Order: sequence, then structure tokens, then C-alpha cells
Amino acid sequence: MALETNNLNFGYKCYNLAKKLWPINRSLTGVGVRQTLSIIKNIIPSITVHEIRSGEHVFDWTIPNEWIVREAWIKGPNGEKILDYMENNLHLVGYSTPVYQKLDLIELKNKIFSLPKQRNAIPYVTSYYKESWGFCMSQEQLENLPKGRYEVYIDSEFKSGSLTYGEVKIKGRSQKEVLISTYICHPSMANNELSGPVIATFITEFLQKQKDLRYSYRIIFVPETIGAIAYIKRNLKELRKNVVAGFVLTCMGDEGSFSFMPSKYGNTYADKIAKHVLKNLQPTFKEYTFLDRGSDERQYCSPGVDLPVVSIMKSKYGEYAEYHTSLDNLEFITENGLAQSFDAIMLAIQAIEVDCVLTATKKCEPFLTKYDLYSTTSIKNSTTNSKRIVDILTYSDGSNTLIDIAELIHKPVWELYNDVNLLAKYKLISLSSEKK
Amino acid sequence: MALETNNLNFGYKCYNLAKKLWPINRSLTGVGVRQTLSIIKNIIPSITVHEIRSGEHVFDWTIPNEWIVREAWIKGPNGEKILDYMENNLHLVGYSTPVYQKLDLIELKNKIFSLPKQRNAIPYVTSYYKESWGFCMSQEQLENLPKGRYEVYIDSEFKSGSLTYGEVKIKGRSQKEVLISTYICHPSMANNELSGPVIATFITEFLQKQKDLRYSYRIIFVPETIGAIAYIKRNLKELRKNVVAGFVLTCMGDEGSFSFMPSKYGNTYADKIAKHVLKNLQPTFKEYTFLDRGSDERQYCSPGVDLPVVSIMKSKYGEYAEYHTSLDNLEFITENGLAQSFDAIMLAIQAIEVDCVLTATKKCEPFLTKYDLYSTTSIKNSTTNSKRIVDILTYSDGSNTLIDIAELIHKPVWELYNDVNLLAKYKLISLSSEKK
Amino acid sequence: MALETNNLNFGYKCYNLAKKLWPINRSLTGVGVRQTLSIIKNIIPSITVHEIRSGEHVFDWTIPNEWIVREAWIKGPNGEKILDYMENNLHLVGYSTPVYQKLDLIELKNKIFSLPKQRNAIPYVTSYYKESWGFCMSQEQLENLPKGRYEVYIDSEFKSGSLTYGEVKIKGRSQKEVLISTYICHPSMANNELSGPVIATFITEFLQKQKDLRYSYRIIFVPETIGAIAYIKRNLKELRKNVVAGFVLTCMGDEGSFSFMPSKYGNTYADKIAKHVLKNLQPTFKEYTFLDRGSDERQYCSPGVDLPVVSIMKSKYGEYAEYHTSLDNLEFITENGLAQSFDAIMLAIQAIEVDCVLTATKKCEPFLTKYDLYSTTSIKNSTTNSKRIVDILTYSDGSNTLIDIAELIHKPVWELYNDVNLLAKYKLISLSSEKK
Repeated sequence: MALETNNLNFGYKCYNLAKKLWPINRSLTGVGVRQTLSIIKNIIPSITVHEIRSGEHVFDWTIPNEWIVREAWIKGPNGEKILDYMENNLHLVGYSTPVYQKLDLIELKNKIFSLPKQRNAIPYVTSYYKESWGFCMSQEQLENLPKGRYEVYIDSEFKSGSLTYGEVKIKGRSQKEVLISTYICHPSMANNELSGPVIATFITEFLQKQKDLRYSYRIIFVPETIGAIAYIKRNLKELRKNVVAGFVLTCMGDEGSFSFMPSKYGNTYADKIAKHVLKNLQPTFKEYTFLDRGSDERQYCSPGVDLPVVSIMKSKYGEYAEYHTSLDNLEFITENGLAQSFDAIMLAIQAIEVDCVLTATKKCEPFLTKYDLYSTTSIKNSTTNSKRIVDILTYSDGSNTLIDIAELIHKPVWELYNDVNLLAKYKLISLSSEKK
Repeated sequence: MALETNNLNFGYKCYNLAKKLWPINRSLTGVGVRQTLSIIKNIIPSITVHEIRSGEHVFDWTIPNEWIVREAWIKGPNGEKILDYMENNLHLVGYSTPVYQKLDLIELKNKIFSLPKQRNAIPYVTSYYKESWGFCMSQEQLENLPKGRYEVYIDSEFKSGSLTYGEVKIKGRSQKEVLISTYICHPSMANNELSGPVIATFITEFLQKQKDLRYSYRIIFVPETIGAIAYIKRNLKELRKNVVAGFVLTCMGDEGSFSFMPSKYGNTYADKIAKHVLKNLQPTFKEYTFLDRGSDERQYCSPGVDLPVVSIMKSKYGEYAEYHTSLDNLEFITENGLAQSFDAIMLAIQAIEVDCVLTATKKCEPFLTKYDLYSTTSIKNSTTNSKRIVDILTYSDGSNTLIDIAELIHKPVWELYNDVNLLAKYKLISLSSEKK
Repeated sequence: MALETNNLNFGYKCYNLAKKLWPINRSLTGVGVRQTLSIIKNIIPSITVHEIRSGEHVFDWTIPNEWIVREAWIKGPNGEKILDYMENNLHLVGYSTPVYQKLDLIELKNKIFSLPKQRNAIPYVTSYYKESWGFCMSQEQLENLPKGRYEVYIDSEFKSGSLTYGEVKIKGRSQKEVLISTYICHPSMANNELSGPVIATFITEFLQKQKDLRYSYRIIFVPETIGAIAYIKRNLKELRKNVVAGFVLTCMGDEGSFSFMPSKYGNTYADKIAKHVLKNLQPTFKEYTFLDRGSDERQYCSPGVDLPVVSIMKSKYGEYAEYHTSLDNLEFITENGLAQSFDAIMLAIQAIEVDCVLTATKKCEPFLTKYDLYSTTSIKNSTTNSKRIVDILTYSDGSNTLIDIAELIHKPVWELYNDVNLLAKYKLISLSSEKK
């Protein structure tokens, strides 16, 4: 009982991978996604990269064309580039159509997005499903633009191609599986989104090293929304049959408190496990409701899909000032923040791996002295380590799993693993997967 | 989806009807009830007036004789009338037996009811089921009565006749029905009770103008307690088979906050609808428990009857100082107060009419852009009107009705009608009456 | 409906019995237990005394040998006894092995238990399951021991014999039974434990005087833990088949507030009854959780036993300073404290005896006037005693027992007995043991 860890510095490894993935101009489709998956493949050679052709129908949606950008800039009245997409890929509105145009400052301003209240931040803007073009810059820069004639150039192209996603399957003893889903469609932003894929990568590496997993694992790296929808379309039957718990990995790298996004009704096995972990790691974690959702749980929990999927996050998307701006950068996430999230996910996975129904084999309390589980001289206020043992036994009546028992006796489940091993060793409990 | 309203001034209409009904000396039986129903019949010609003979057994009760009053007064020592029932019908204790008697002030006082703490109010007193007579006056008047010899006269009579009630049935597509019950047995008091029958009258008029009602409606005007019991006796089988929700209309005309009287266990469909309406109209509404009950829900929720009946009120009977006194007069109720209650009942009825199970027709979130339901350029903090649409869809999984969804997404159900119409128009949801 | 009481001074009787039982050196086995049961037999001649042979296996445990103590003392450097077990049986560690030894003060101190924070208290210490010997004294005495050579002597012996317990069965109309369990294995301490057996004794005497009990009763006096386990081993099938509610009687004699120890999940019939009684006797009673357990509910609620057993206590074991010391003496308990606990248990038993499903025989409210259950002249704010009657009737719909109704209408169940008798007399309700 318990997964093998070897105290590797996961925070450090995650952060380093984020640095590597940072410069890539990811979008829904195209070369950015492929480059990202290719770097991840160095760590997880067994990842399978799938392509879905542009134009294919996935439920109510259609896979879009690939968006290709070669160049994008604005030149000022004096002919110098005042903005270049090569310097920061947030400068260009995602899925901008090609354009070459000269226009006055006042016209230019209609095509520029900025954040008046965050004067030094470049916003992240996309226009996936309506033909349009535009640029993003900081409010400071915008306000300092001199009057005059500007030249804008976007050398972009839409081409029938495909949508790309990565998938890893790890076989456990059971066909039942845990789903881990993260997304790879945002350009240079760190918490949302690089924290998700880097943790997913090293969770995968970690799981692949385990010798004996109970559950199978499915880890997917998809473009948000359309990618998740496409993935569900292709795998719905399997997912509905097998997934016992799922986690959308996003916003996991900053130093903020933990946040929790429940499933649609907040009552699935994934909710129970995740809340238990967070409550015991950080009692003050922030619990959102499904009305606050915003990532791929929107698809996983939608009618007819209804998977038990939740998110364990640090600062939640939409809830921190740097979100969806150039300030969500490599300084906003830390090794420590990533390591904390990694641990939370690992504790959740471990809890799922070892969870089972406990049934005491003997009636009444056992004679603990026999098993060296009891201090032998009873004096008022003596501290014995047998209380927790007996508490576990008491609720091992066949109606509770280990996580239920941890909840009932108000202990982190990971503090019980050693006791449960002892109890099983002495045959004082039997373990099974079914409640009586 | 939604009933047709045409912005009529229901508050004004209700108040005017209350003025007309005010002077009538209503009691459990007799001419007062008949006059009242006759005035209502001018507005609702289809009302059926039923008579139940005196002496008929209704469950544990017996229909009483009719009480007829021709004259009732007290003359003072100097021979002048100091109290005349013709001036205010509250002066006479309800169901007083006939009497002619001369008596000293001290004896007279034994036959007079007053309210020491509300010095200017005439109390409302009845003695339905024990032979007795008496008068009511203000404490002020009582204290100023000079010593001396008084003459009291009550020309009343008990005659075998009948108990009268009115009933309107409106046919909808379904045999299932909504019950609206109000009472017409109190003499000149406005909030309790004229507010109930006047709102019931115009709700009925309003419903009769609808072209396509889903539910059938049964609106009854009965004397309180004995009338409700008699009605239940005659209609129990039908009521139990068909009533999906019922409302006792009482105390609906003042300017106080809304009050809510639940059904016996507070868990019926009527409770759910009424609480949803009140919570969204006035979050601070006062919620009573069934132990505070006091009107005909006592019968509708009694063992063996067990109908889903609640009350939406303004200031509840027994909870406002003017209750059951001459101060509960036409100044205590207002057009505005009546209109607010009218609206609450209409919103409840409308919620029931349109409530149904919603099931999304597509898996995953639909591509809202296609239906012009989504803003197309995504920027942080942009305000889209699509959030509510998606929230509705998310919970349209066949396990919720519209009112459930409104509760789940914390919106008044009436704010969802337009969205639901759009979703149905685009065939993104299907509507049915059964949960899956 | 209601048990016959005759206002005897139970507090006085209980206290007096405690005084008689006080000096006896009780332990798990042996003469102390037998003397105790023999004194109780004077009050309850029908008590059966059972013996279970040493060495017999009971579930995971083995019945220990009898422990016999003839003498035990310490002599100081000057040869005088500085501690004698005859003066206070707490001076000797329970189940001490025989010893005769001379030793220096510093060595002696290793064999002495004291409580540094309760300087004048002799602690209660046992070493049932590990061979050992020792003495207990107050911290004050310990600190004043002069240096020098000491002589210790324990003339004890372990002998194959038996474990002794007492059992009384009282037959009611039903085979279903109420279990009352208390323990008799502690030497001279008053609240924990004499309060339990003395109340159990007089509850038994009281029940035996009843002419017509609905339930059967099983009252047992066992050594704690091993005795309860042995008893369960011998009677499990019967207990599981018949026990509807059980009470462990312990810590019932002091002047503190009431405490409540629930069953394992806090959801049994015994929990419902006991909480109702305590809430209505003392709304501020202290409710513990099963994690705070410490007496024989540990066995009764263990997996595979799972009986509905709770404890109604005054100051709970482990929660008062005098617990398990010489200060838990006859001054710590009072007649008044014992009487309060006696009453609480009696109210609980009475509630169980009379609990049944109530079903109104008539639809709608009955015509209470007919039965003289209603005040006949209705005036605002009049105080009628009929409200409670009607509240009872309202919830007498076949889905509630009397205790449910008491909870629903927020009244102590014992305030309803008279009303229920009246309602039954007038055939307005029928009583049965099954919910519809």
C-alpha cells in the first residue's frame, strides 16, 4: 500500500520543462502544438500524437483550419517597428487573418486590445471563430503612440491541416482508469497554461516507473475546448465505461493557496478524493462551485458525457490579476508552487490506488497486546499509539472504504497507510473492492 | 413558454373589489357569503355556487344552521344606542344567540369583549360552536361607559339552511391541477380576509383569458375550516389524484414583507415553487414553519388528505397588530401590497405551467457561435450573455426540471424563459415531463 | 401509556448502595466482583451470576487468571509502613505480581506511579496483560519520602479460576429488548464506576415492579472490556436479533452537566431517544462523538456486533480532573447527581416503552369541541390547550412514531403522553407498531 517515490525534485523538473516550452507560439492547431508535444516526447517516449483533419465534425463543432503565422508587426510613422510578434507572441490576436494596411493612429486603435487597469500587461486575445485581425499591447505603449500614419502587416494563413493532441495510456491491473487531462493551446503564459502540461508530463513519467498499478491511466494533452470535445467524441464509450476519477490540470504553478473546482454536482468519487486531499493539505483551500468553471470540465461534465472530473489548482483562472496577460510569466510560477501541486495530485492518485473496503476479521476489539499494537500499562492520560488503530478497526465494518474511514476519523488518509498495512499483516482486516 | 399578461393594473382592480365586498356581514353561513359570491360572479360568470344542507356530516363535523341577524344594539342608561351592529358588524360576537335583556353595567361588562392593549380597536370574536351571545367594542368605549342600567337586543335566528361556497374549474391540457383556495367567512376586515378572495378572483379572470393552459385550475371560495372540510369531503378523491400544487390565499394586501407558510413537511412541489419565487422576489421573506399554521392548510395537509398546499402571504395572520380587529381595514391594505402578492402568485403559477425536464440534445457544449448565442472575440473579463445559456445547458441532463436548474444556477426561473425558448428553437434542448 | 413510578428517592437509594460497594477491591476477576454482585443480589434476588473459566477464548481474547491479593505494603527506612493497600486499594497497581524486595529510594521510585499535576491524588493504574508490579501514591507523599532503604511486599497470586458477571432478564410482551450494561471491575472509585452499577441496580428493581412491560430487558454487570467481550461472545445471536436500544451506564453520579456518547454512526434508535431526552432535560448537554468513546460501546458497536448502544452520562470519563484517581470518591458523587441520571434513563426507557406509530382515524382536523378538547370562544391571542393536541394529530399520518412527532413539534415526548391518552380514548388516533 503506497506508490514508490524516490524523492526526486519534481518542482525543479517541472519548472525547467516550462522554461523550454515557454517561447512556443501555441494555438488551437498547428506547429506550436506539435513542437510542444515533441519536447514532451523526449520525456515520455510512449506518447502517441494524434491528428484530426480540419473540417471533421466533432459533435456540434468542426475542426478548424490550421493557423500559420510567419510575420506580424506594426511600423510607426517613422517606419520603425513599434510592435513585433516575434518578440512576444501575445502581441498578435490569435487566429488573425492576413493583412497589409496603412492607417492612421485613430483607425489603428480600433484594432488594438489593451487593459486600461493593468497598464503594463499585454492581454491575451483570440478570435477563433470569427474572421478578424488585431494586435495586443500594453496600455502604456498604447497611450504613448504618436499621431501619424502606421503600417500593419500580418503574414498569416489558414490551411486545411489537422488538430493535434497527445495521449499516453498506462496499463494497470484493472481496466478502470484515472483520466488526467491538460491543455496545450496557449502561447507564452506560464500558470495558465504551462503549469498543467509540465505537471502532467512528470506525473506520467512517475506513473510509468511504478511496477504494479491498480488502475490504468490515460493522460491527454489537448487543445482546450475543441481538443477536449474531439477527444471525447473519439473515446466517449471507453471513457464512460472506465473512468473512475479524472483531473483537469491547469493553473498549478503559482504560490497562491489551493483552489478546487468540483464536478457538476460535486458528488463524485473524484470530488471526495480531491476534497479530502486539499482539506488535509490546506484547510483554508478555496472551494469554487461548478458555476465558476472555465476549463475542460465544461466538456467532461456536460450532459451525456458526465464524467467524474475535477480540478485541483493553485490560483484559479480568472481569479488572479496576471491571468491571460503577459504577466502570467515564468516569474509568476515557482518550483515550490509546482511541487505543491504535484504532491496534491500524487496524494490523490495514491489515495485512489490504495482505496478499498476494509472489513475487520474479528468481532469486538482485538487483543492488541498480542500484536504489539498496544501499550500495556494503563494510566490516565498515557499516550498510546493504538487509538488510531482501533478507530480504523471500528469503522472497518464492510461499509466503508479507506477514504471514508479517514473522513470518519478525521485523519489524512496518508497517515493511515502504515496502520492499515500492520492490520492487514496481522490479518485483523481483510481488504476488498466491494462494499457489503 | 410564459403566460400572456397585458400589464393590467391588478392591484387597482383588487383593491376596488375589496371596497365593494367590505360592508358585507360575512359569517360561516348565510346571506353574507351569498352576497359576496354574487359580487364575484359579476367578474367570473362561470363560478358555480354550491350549497350544503345544515346538518350534513362532513368527516367529524356537522354543517351548522344558518345564522341570521336582523338587528343588534346596546342602549345606555339614557336610552340612546351606544353600540349598533349596523355601524360595524364586528360589534356583534359571531353566531350570537338572540337576546333581549336589561342589565347593570357590571353585568354587561361580562358580555363585552375588548382589547386592553389596543385601546381603539374593536376585536373580532366568534362563538360558532357554543351557544352564547356577546358584543365587542373598543377598550376606550368600554372604559367610558357610565354606570347604570343597559338594554341589550340581538334579533338573531338559527335556521336550517345551508353552507355556501363557490367553485371555478378551468380546463387545461392536463387533468393534473393547481388548487387555489381562499375563504369568505369574515365580516369587515381587509387583509384577513378580503385580500385573499379579491386576488383569487382576478387570478381566475386572468387564467380564464389564457388560450393554452397546461394544467387545470380549481379555484374555491369557502368558509374557513368547516367550508374547507366540507369541500375536501366532497372532492377528496379528485384532489388527491390531481392536485400538483395548491395555494391558500390569505393576508395578501398589506405593505409588509412576504411571509411563507410551508406544507406539513415543507417538501412538496408547491413548497419548492413558492420558496423559489419568494427567495427571488425578496430574499428576506419570512419563512414560518407548519407549527405556525392557522388557515385551511390545516385541513389540506391533514392526515389522509396530505395535499401539497402552501401559503404565500404578506404579513401573516396573528403576526400583525391589526389582525382580527377593526384596524384591519381598507387603509391597512394597499393597491401596491395587493399587486405584489398578485405577482408572486402569478410567478408561481407561471413557473408551474412551464416547468419541465430539460435534456440537452448534443454532447459537450454546443458551438454557440453558430446560433449567435456567443460573443466571438474572447478577451479577459469580456461580458458575454452566453454564460447563463451554458449553465442551463450544463444542467439539462435529464435529471432536472427548469425550476431545479434555476435553483442550481441561482437565478430566478423567470429570467430563464427567454433562454430556454432560444435553446428549444435551435433544438439544443428537448423538453419533456418525465425525468430520466 | 407511562410506567408506574411512586416517587421513591432513587438518588438516596443509589448513593447508599454506592457507599456499601465502595471499599471492595474490584478487579477484572476474583472476589471483589463476586462480593459486589452478592450485595446487589440483596436488592435483585433474581440476578444470575455467571462464571467463565480462565483460559477460555472469547473472540481474540483469553479469560485471564484470577488475581488474588492478600497483603501489599511498603516499609520505609525506619521500618514503618509508609503505604498499605489495606488503607486504599488504589495504592497497588492492578494485577501486580508477587514481590518481596529491599531497594533504595531511587529504585523504588521506578515502581511508583503518581500524578505530578494532581499532587494529592493517588492514580488508578493497572497492568492486566503484562506481568509487572508497582505502587501508586500521591505526588506529595512521593516527594516527601526520605532517602534510604525500603522494603516492598506484595502477597498476590494468579490462579486459574473464572471471570464473573451478573445478568438479569425481565420478560416483557415482546422478545425485543432493551440492553443495559454496566461494569464492576474498578476498585474504590465513585463516579467511574460505582454510579453505573448502582443506577443499573435500581433501574432493574424499578422495572421488575412494572406489571406490563412492552419490551424485555437485559441488565448486565460485567468487568469492562473483557467482560463485555465475553458476554457478547456468549449472546451475540440473541443480542443482534433482539436489542432495539442499549445503554452503557457509567459516570452518572456527579453534579456536572449531562454528556452523550453516540453509537458508531450516531444514527440508531438509541441515539434518537437519548438525544431527545437530553436535549429536553438540558439543552446545553455535551455531545461527544464516537471517536471520544472509552467504555463498552467500544465492543457493542464494533464490526460484526453493531448494536444500537449509547451512553447518557454526567461528566464523561477522561473529561474530569478526578477521573481514575482517589479523588473520584464518595464526595464527588451526590444523591442529586445520581437522581438526575436515574431520571434521564427512566425517561429514555419510558419513551421506548410507549413509542409507537400514531395514525389519525379521521380526515381533516376533528371537531375538538365535541371531545371537550377545544376552547369554544375564539378571540385573538386566546390561550387554548388544543394547539398541542392538533399538532400531534397533524403528524399522526402513519409515517411517524411518537418520538418523531415530539421532535417535529419541538416538545419533550413526556409532555405528550396525556394528550395521546386522550386522543386514543376518544378514538381520534390509532396506535400501532409499524409505519405505513
